[in-house]
Amino acid sequence: MTRPFPKTPEFSGSLYRPARFEGSVFDLEVEGRVPEDIHGTFFQVAPDPQFPPMRGNDIFFNGDGAVHAFRFANGAVDFQRRYVMTDRLKAQRAERESLFGLYRNGYTNDPRADGVHMGTANTNVVQHNGRLLALKEDSPPYALDPVTLETHGLFDFDGQLTSPTFTAHPKFDPETGAMLCFGYEAKGEATPDIVYYEIDSQGRKQREIWLRGPYAAMIHDFAVTRNYIIFPLMPLTPDLDRIRKGGNHFEWQPGLEQVFGVLPRDGDGTDVRWFTAPNGFQGHTLNAFDDGRGRIFVDMPVTDGNIFYFFPQSDGHVPPPETLSSRMMRWTFDMNNPGNALSMAPITDFACEFPKCDPRYSGHEYRHGFVIGMDMTRPFDAERLGAPPFQFFNLLSHVDVATRRVKSWFADAQTCFQEPVFVPRSANAPEGEGWVIALANRLVDQTTDLVILDAQHMDEGPVAVVHLPVRLRMSLHGSWVPAAA
Amino acid sequence: MTRPFPKTPEFSGSLYRPARFEGSVFDLEVEGRVPEDIHGTFFQVAPDPQFPPMRGNDIFFNGDGAVHAFRFANGAVDFQRRYVMTDRLKAQRAERESLFGLYRNGYTNDPRADGVHMGTANTNVVQHNGRLLALKEDSPPYALDPVTLETHGLFDFDGQLTSPTFTAHPKFDPETGAMLCFGYEAKGEATPDIVYYEIDSQGRKQREIWLRGPYAAMIHDFAVTRNYIIFPLMPLTPDLDRIRKGGNHFEWQPGLEQVFGVLPRDGDGTDVRWFTAPNGFQGHTLNAFDDGRGRIFVDMPVTDGNIFYFFPQSDGHVPPPETLSSRMMRWTFDMNNPGNALSMAPITDFACEFPKCDPRYSGHEYRHGFVIGMDMTRPFDAERLGAPPFQFFNLLSHVDVATRRVKSWFADAQTCFQEPVFVPRSANAPEGEGWVIALANRLVDQTTDLVILDAQHMDEGPVAVVHLPVRLRMSLHGSWVPAAA
Repeated sequence: MTRPFPKTPEFSGSLYRPARFEGSVFDLEVEGRVPEDIHGTFFQVAPDPQFPPMRGNDIFFNGDGAVHAFRFANGAVDFQRRYVMTDRLKAQRAERESLFGLYRNGYTNDPRADGVHMGTANTNVVQHNGRLLALKEDSPPYALDPVTLETHGLFDFDGQLTSPTFTAHPKFDPETGAMLCFGYEAKGEATPDIVYYEIDSQGRKQREIWLRGPYAAMIHDFAVTRNYIIFPLMPLTPDLDRIRKGGNHFEWQPGLEQVFGVLPRDGDGTDVRWFTAPNGFQGHTLNAFDDGRGRIFVDMPVTDGNIFYFFPQSDGHVPPPETLSSRMMRWTFDMNNPGNALSMAPITDFACEFPKCDPRYSGHEYRHGFVIGMDMTRPFDAERLGAPPFQFFNLLSHVDVATRRVKSWFADAQTCFQEPVFVPRSANAPEGEGWVIALANRLVDQTTDLVILDAQHMDEGPVAVVHLPVRLRMSLHGSWVPAAA
Repeated sequence: MTRPFPKTPEFSGSLYRPARFEGSVFDLEVEGRVPEDIHGTFFQVAPDPQFPPMRGNDIFFNGDGAVHAFRFANGAVDFQRRYVMTDRLKAQRAERESLFGLYRNGYTNDPRADGVHMGTANTNVVQHNGRLLALKEDSPPYALDPVTLETHGLFDFDGQLTSPTFTAHPKFDPETGAMLCFGYEAKGEATPDIVYYEIDSQGRKQREIWLRGPYAAMIHDFAVTRNYIIFPLMPLTPDLDRIRKGGNHFEWQPGLEQVFGVLPRDGDGTDVRWFTAPNGFQGHTLNAFDDGRGRIFVDMPVTDGNIFYFFPQSDGHVPPPETLSSRMMRWTFDMNNPGNALSMAPITDFACEFPKCDPRYSGHEYRHGFVIGMDMTRPFDAERLGAPPFQFFNLLSHVDVATRRVKSWFADAQTCFQEPVFVPRSANAPEGEGWVIALANRLVDQTTDLVILDAQHMDEGPVAVVHLPVRLRMSLHGSWVPAAA
């Protein structure tokens, strides 16, 4: 039987208490009006541990992936939720307890987990070539049926995947539908090897480039422009000795710079150039593009220290999160200049994350970004909440990266947003015209809503609030799949 | 799409907001220890309207039946929840809105509901002859698969059912497994006809007795002893003219007595005798038995007025519920005496309902009853709740009907219990030795737990609290099915 989950912040409160159920809700309750031009599915995945951790606590990223599908048609929304039936989850269900220890450390597993693939499929979910892929960067994708959410199993692209790892943040070429993707620790645990793939819309691998980083590091997200691939090496490094001794997979290195590998898309691994910037934490890519003349722009939130408190540096030090400063930044790489310098300029003056662009402009010059942000001057209602959550996304915002103008919606002192998606009003609508959809957790009420905002008028609040009758745990990433796909 | 539910007490708060989801939870989280001798399934059904009512409000009893299964094995509990896919629900899902008007009044339906069977299957769920039967007293049962909860459809016992109606409160002969059951309004809406059936454990009808009441009335529950059948006619009467004019199916008649029809099991309809008592509201049967010498004892809660406020009397009058007095009563019928008098003596000094006996003693002399009750001296935490619920079951109690001794558990000022089931410790355990299982809604926390208590030590509180990650709406009735069945 399932013992109680720990009473730690990682497993407590409206955001982090595991949600655990699987099932569906036919025709969610709607306040306002869901625009009828929203026709397709919002897929999303949350780490949601089936069982309490083997040790007294665990990190958020180690939960079993549970996929959500919000299906929009004719102004109505149906909901489904199903665990990815990973080998790991099946093994644990058979024993009715957790068999896996520290995050990405097989040396800390229960012996009953020997030989069981460790992928949790908990980070992102995208559709490609008719398959729904549930992604976790230490594993090949798990393939799911996009209609039933049934798990087909680990998927190696019909034998074309040559790395044991695969990013949770592939990009899609808006012109060809090709999936642009990579793996890190690509020749085994803690290796500095990186592989880049382009897999066309029919599932055929069209390009494979191997390179070696200056050292092994977490490469959580990346960027692809028309002509370049950019790999951000975060100052979080794996170490095989430490892992074998039962330590953390990653450790924060305050002495390391932020490193970016820049590779021409038509080059090979030897063409990579390494750019550096002072120590800091690279977040998720909003978008990137190049000007066709060797200048590359990459937009992402950057924090001036380690926000992954659960991967402390070797002396155990973790700066208190509230002492860190974070903003959306534009990195500029000039391939015409020699050397490894790059420039960084802020786009926002507030902390934000989980950025999304209009997917039709992915890799291309663009203006419109959508993020969840933190207005530190408007704290959560801590008294009614008991324990405040340790994430704090009380804004849903539109960022015009050309003008730096921001339009934000602050709902109230109990609402925490999850990653948005952008849905174009129509296939041919101008960039950024359409709808932003995001989950909103009502922390005091212990409920979860889906909110829908006009992307160009986010400050006016939602046009529709879709009520879930169940509370969803904090999720990670997701994507919009138009009905036509 | 589903418009918002009304903000009325019938659809609001932790108990009455519709729960709406279908699905499962593998291995519920347990605090304490679930006794390993609990091996079987606790089935239960809640009215849970899929769509907001056609009119501005609706009564609780009109919701679509959603069946719960809590499956116990080896100290673990798995959970499933699925709507009964009634013809009514299918028709409404096809239109994505409510098509049915007033409770049990087809004249108030949307024309798109014409010809669609109105049964909601929302009142009780029992297993018989391998089928799970979801019951509503105005309809034949819906048959479900006990393992998947899939709905097979309306079930007329292979053509043996001769009434359009079938009680939600059949009894089971503990010696033979026969289902003892009846229908009222059994020759059509508002008819005074009653039919009694005995259907053996193989599904074969062994007895069918027809009789006519002195007038048509609601007969919600009934009682069967070794030698007698007792039909309580409640002072709630249907009227075809009123129904045709769009009025309520039932109306409270303050001028009517409580009437009980008593029929020998080996007699025919002409053998019925009618007993009467002053106006009052007969509740659910705890148990009944006879002494083999013509004395019959029926134990049930009785209230001195109309607690079904949603069926007012013709002038609209409804006494405020808090002015009504309610207790568990023992009715005694003496078939040796002429006349229609009967005697009534209280068993408890507090209001209680949803009584259950040890099912091995159903219809036989017995001692142990289990109820949910109201301790009016310990009100709910109304300030934290906003609106207090209009039901108030803050006690889970064991009543020894021989000694009148009561052992109760009061959890706290936010916990409202739902109907318990009793599970014998083993097939041969003494009467009342075993476990009481009930849902507990935590009204402030908006969560639902399943609590398990030692039936002989209820005042000591639960031996296990099983946490659901989802809130369940207030349910009606259910039953325990041992794994052996």
